[in-house]
Amino acid sequence: MSFASDNAGGVHPRIMAALAAANQGHVPAYGEDSITRAAQDRLRELFDAPEAAVHFVASGTAANALSLSLLAPGWGKVFCHADAHVQTSETGAPEFFSGGAKLIPIPGAGGKIAPEALAEALVVHGRDSVHAGRNAALSLTNATEWGTVYRPDEVEALAAIARDAGLGLHMDGARFANALAGLDVAPADLSWRAGVDILSLGGTKDGCMGVEAVLIFDPAKSEEFQFRRKRAGALVSKHRYLAAQVLAWLEGDLWLQLARHANAMAHELALGLARLPGVRIDQRVESNAVFATIPADLHRRACAGGLCYHLWPHTQQPAEDEPVGIRLVCGWDTRLEDVTGALQALAEPKPLRAEPQALG
Amino acid sequence: MSFASDNAGGVHPRIMAALAAANQGHVPAYGEDSITRAAQDRLRELFDAPEAAVHFVASGTAANALSLSLLAPGWGKVFCHADAHVQTSETGAPEFFSGGAKLIPIPGAGGKIAPEALAEALVVHGRDSVHAGRNAALSLTNATEWGTVYRPDEVEALAAIARDAGLGLHMDGARFANALAGLDVAPADLSWRAGVDILSLGGTKDGCMGVEAVLIFDPAKSEEFQFRRKRAGALVSKHRYLAAQVLAWLEGDLWLQLARHANAMAHELALGLARLPGVRIDQRVESNAVFATIPADLHRRACAGGLCYHLWPHTQQPAEDEPVGIRLVCGWDTRLEDVTGALQALAEPKPLRAEPQALG
Amino acid sequence: MSFASDNAGGVHPRIMAALAAANQGHVPAYGEDSITRAAQDRLRELFDAPEAAVHFVASGTAANALSLSLLAPGWGKVFCHADAHVQTSETGAPEFFSGGAKLIPIPGAGGKIAPEALAEALVVHGRDSVHAGRNAALSLTNATEWGTVYRPDEVEALAAIARDAGLGLHMDGARFANALAGLDVAPADLSWRAGVDILSLGGTKDGCMGVEAVLIFDPAKSEEFQFRRKRAGALVSKHRYLAAQVLAWLEGDLWLQLARHANAMAHELALGLARLPGVRIDQRVESNAVFATIPADLHRRACAGGLCYHLWPHTQQPAEDEPVGIRLVCGWDTRLEDVTGALQALAEPKPLRAEPQALG
Amino acid sequence: MSFASDNAGGVHPRIMAALAAANQGHVPAYGEDSITRAAQDRLRELFDAPEAAVHFVASGTAANALSLSLLAPGWGKVFCHADAHVQTSETGAPEFFSGGAKLIPIPGAGGKIAPEALAEALVVHGRDSVHAGRNAALSLTNATEWGTVYRPDEVEALAAIARDAGLGLHMDGARFANALAGLDVAPADLSWRAGVDILSLGGTKDGCMGVEAVLIFDPAKSEEFQFRRKRAGALVSKHRYLAAQVLAWLEGDLWLQLARHANAMAHELALGLARLPGVRIDQRVESNAVFATIPADLHRRACAGGLCYHLWPHTQQPAEDEPVGIRLVCGWDTRLEDVTGALQALAEPKPLRAEPQALG
Repeated sequence: MSFASDNAGGVHPRIMAALAAANQGHVPAYGEDSITRAAQDRLRELFDAPEAAVHFVASGTAANALSLSLLAPGWGKVFCHADAHVQTSETGAPEFFSGGAKLIPIPGAGGKIAPEALAEALVVHGRDSVHAGRNAALSLTNATEWGTVYRPDEVEALAAIARDAGLGLHMDGARFANALAGLDVAPADLSWRAGVDILSLGGTKDGCMGVEAVLIFDPAKSEEFQFRRKRAGALVSKHRYLAAQVLAWLEGDLWLQLARHANAMAHELALGLARLPGVRIDQRVESNAVFATIPADLHRRACAGGLCYHLWPHTQQPAEDEPVGIRLVCGWDTRLEDVTGALQALAEPKPLRAEPQALG
Repeated sequence: MSFASDNAGGVHPRIMAALAAANQGHVPAYGEDSITRAAQDRLRELFDAPEAAVHFVASGTAANALSLSLLAPGWGKVFCHADAHVQTSETGAPEFFSGGAKLIPIPGAGGKIAPEALAEALVVHGRDSVHAGRNAALSLTNATEWGTVYRPDEVEALAAIARDAGLGLHMDGARFANALAGLDVAPADLSWRAGVDILSLGGTKDGCMGVEAVLIFDPAKSEEFQFRRKRAGALVSKHRYLAAQVLAWLEGDLWLQLARHANAMAHELALGLARLPGVRIDQRVESNAVFATIPADLHRRACAGGLCYHLWPHTQQPAEDEPVGIRLVCGWDTRLEDVTGALQALAEPKPLRAEPQALG
Repeated sequence: MSFASDNAGGVHPRIMAALAAANQGHVPAYGEDSITRAAQDRLRELFDAPEAAVHFVASGTAANALSLSLLAPGWGKVFCHADAHVQTSETGAPEFFSGGAKLIPIPGAGGKIAPEALAEALVVHGRDSVHAGRNAALSLTNATEWGTVYRPDEVEALAAIARDAGLGLHMDGARFANALAGLDVAPADLSWRAGVDILSLGGTKDGCMGVEAVLIFDPAKSEEFQFRRKRAGALVSKHRYLAAQVLAWLEGDLWLQLARHANAMAHELALGLARLPGVRIDQRVESNAVFATIPADLHRRACAGGLCYHLWPHTQQPAEDEPVGIRLVCGWDTRLEDVTGALQALAEPKPLRAEPQALG
Repeated sequence: MSFASDNAGGVHPRIMAALAAANQGHVPAYGEDSITRAAQDRLRELFDAPEAAVHFVASGTAANALSLSLLAPGWGKVFCHADAHVQTSETGAPEFFSGGAKLIPIPGAGGKIAPEALAEALVVHGRDSVHAGRNAALSLTNATEWGTVYRPDEVEALAAIARDAGLGLHMDGARFANALAGLDVAPADLSWRAGVDILSLGGTKDGCMGVEAVLIFDPAKSEEFQFRRKRAGALVSKHRYLAAQVLAWLEGDLWLQLARHANAMAHELALGLARLPGVRIDQRVESNAVFATIPADLHRRACAGGLCYHLWPHTQQPAEDEPVGIRLVCGWDTRLEDVTGALQALAEPKPLRAEPQALG
């Protein structure tokens, strides 16, 4: 019963089957094949963005860092949430790819940047000069690192401030499907129609093997992206196997079904957790993760019972018997019995049969 | 009938099956899983290098540029063949990853650097100074871009010169299996025992979906590699799917069988080509590619007949009726009837049914 | 009457004379001359650091960014004050030179980092991992951007925490002379004896034309510095003219005399300001700058009267009649009558004859 | 008697006097002062380029690398002569500043690129693709590293080829004054009128203390230059002292007078050398350097006699009694008696009094 990460899960059978089906004969390498073209077309259609450039890479960090480097030069400032993945978990990739851009972390409850907080950060850091650098980009994660979701109107409000300050808008959509699945809006509403310039659209956490799409709504930047992708060693040669994942993932709205399921499991889990004595749910569940504070004895019992999750934030150092903050992530492959089992592991004093396992 | 590129081919069924088999349950992400450990151990065993660090990435350019950046700082000089992939086909990746290293191209017949040529290049470019930069690395491709192969003694001779000049030795082994398959030597003999410090070992062109192993024979550099890989956005999250490919590829010496088959097909093709009127075989066939010069009418016939290959070098601009240099690459999935068909397409005036197709 | 910046001032006559004296005949370029050796030796002697490597560059940003790049790789974290020059005023130079390092800004009153604040920042950001990056450096500015000074024991306390966390210690000493002049300690006490690994020692703001020395107390890093300096285009060819400035600056403790004078003028100015109605001195004056909040009418009068200074912080946006924060910097060339004049311009309703002038 | 380098010489008295004269009072830092504006205006006037952006830096490598980085992205190809300073003597600065650009060295007699050689290099390396990179710039050195000079029509011919291939044209004018002084043309004729996009105009080797102007004939790139200059740590704070050098250097055509004198001394030296037995002049003297091959005994005598020069190329390794290639550089401060003395040192068997001295 692992709730450690949606990267720990597997590949959806229909996507695995699509890989096998794509495994026929020879096709041109480096994205010049018809499967790649079909996947690009499908995304343009789904996002109602016939002119958008669409490219695929194999990792979320590459997707984000390449996207930001299209917006931010080496003297650019990138505003983002203090807990944004690009700030906390991508080891200098944005700085490296851009040749020196500086990330300006903005605090905010629930992983979200409030319009006032962005405006305030711009007052302090938004002066354009050769000494201070140039305003370059705002990066929003949606769903956020705390499982919350920006609605289209919230993105629009931030985009308007960003635009006035000369900032392009990047969206880290590693969990874009989970964000979208909880809202009754079209993909375009949560991206370009709300002011997003470049979207990193994550497939990996939502049932793919390893593929992220980058949607560049201003196609003039497409050529530069391709050179940057190659220079970064991120151009995959047998490219059809990236694209085949995307096609199967989108087919019949599988991407949204998987995300909806993961979100539903997270809701279920939160409901159960909330009933346990001493447990506090720390964030409104809006996507596929549950953030909770639990008593120390529940934490010990969970670990002994083979229930895997991460402490959140990583940086907490709770004393022996103090409550501990945890993150439980549900995936497309989380079953209702996993949720039930998790709740039992927390509630029941008896250890389960499964062995404890450290998950990354 | 495509002989355009070994990147155009598919995935071997046993490797595809291994991906499906690995698709069970949750495992830790980012290479902390047991499949990754098994693949690393297997490579250490195969290369008789129990201390070596082994890491996986999804592209050859990432493997090469990361490897070189461990040897060459931003003021380093990297000596390589003028036709080396790192020099001609990786768009500034080695320069970018190292922060400014300069590649020094060395000419040489058949894609190989002769010891004398290396010595001469060192006379001209090997002066260490803050103005000229520091000697940093020698990069050898094996099998080379012209299908030829360095034998262990040849690598040793170059390694000795390199060592004396303060150069670390990198081997671009995108087709290492093809090189090894034609020699009766152990993997270690063609790598660390011959003086190689870092080997980029390619799986992609030899039947994998997309995986390259980097073998760092001095494990002290392993940590730096891991930081560099992450900073480059090249750390794949669902890492088991890289490792599962490697395990299946090595299992029962599949990697060498596939390479041997590809090499054999290339030999067969060369034999047939050599019998065609006006055709000249330009390089001794030592791995899986055939380089030939063919009359203009054969070239027109081949294209019309659906036979796909690349002009080689890309830069030739032959006149209307002049002979043309071509490269035909065989893969693990090239069948004898493909070879026969190719020869017929060249020899027969009648076009085949298949449509011409441009392959990248 | 300019109190805008110590970069706006001129060159001390003895330093100008030394440049003229050095202008004799031919000497080797690029720092191989005897004047350079003498200046290096003099600094080693003054700092009681016979093994230290000493190099010269022409700008403070180059000195800082090169120094940090010796401590921080592209995956390194550099902790510094939120108002540190390296964070606010060097446009991505530290990120660029290191190839991606991330600066972690730490808040703190008076431009200083408290040991507790450093410890807290390490709890939140000090986790070493390929995702989060590696702890690399602590950068302290002394005197700080708010004119305050770290005493040796304060540096030591921070150095101890830094060392435990794996951080090298860099000191941005653009105003090191001003810091030292206010303390009764030796140069070594405020640098390597207190745990500083690399010191950027600024001459430019203290009467030189344009020279900063970098003192690397671990000489093993000297060679790398020289390659990095050249790669950055920061190796000056007619190098004697950098070194001649340094020699004259140090001769007879001129550097400390000039700094002491500038500090004294700042004290004088603060005393006078404090007597003006409605004026608040915001920082204890410990070096050559005065930070004050003054009523709006004084501000208007000052500007009209030709008194030049900067708003501080730059980011404030005071309303029409609200008090305004200002910074007044004294230099080696600030005269007592300048101070008197400034106080008059603030106190007197009549404008002076001098024209207002915007200074950068 | 040093003929080692024009970087070994001093500063012309009128330029030194101008530095002293500029040393009055406070002026804005970072190039916002009136001296800087005057120097920029003067250069625009002299080059008949009222729209050009003009910026100053303190080193030739910074001037060249910043200029090239305006033309070449990290995936750009920069064509230059095999002996160009940017290729042989700037340690990865062009690659670093651009983020990965690749320099393509072109051979050519006398340090010059022939139009045919450029055309041929474009056939081999000029293919634009994400794998091979993009054509970005041609960099010409004028006067060249071998003392020869491109005339305006020669620059035009190369510029035309460059333009057709999508290459911007950079001129490394470290010795532009020496080139211009030997031709009866206007500065504009040898720069923008001949197709040059960016000129690095060197003052340092021609009597300044340390200043290079960058003339960007398309002012749209001016802002980017300023950000790049700051990010590189190459923005000098007390900027008036750069500009004051430039003004004095241009005043009354001093720059051309000094260059003409240096060129004349080189001619004189070459005439004398040519009369010595066994000496061969290797390049037509068109600027301020003489390249000759001299017998081994003359070389030994010269060194013993205190005559300083460099072996050229650096890479030669002559046998004991073989002739040796040398470079002798004249400067603005070379006197006729220095030339006479040099010829005597070579011709006379008696050593002079002066001690031998190694010059960088």
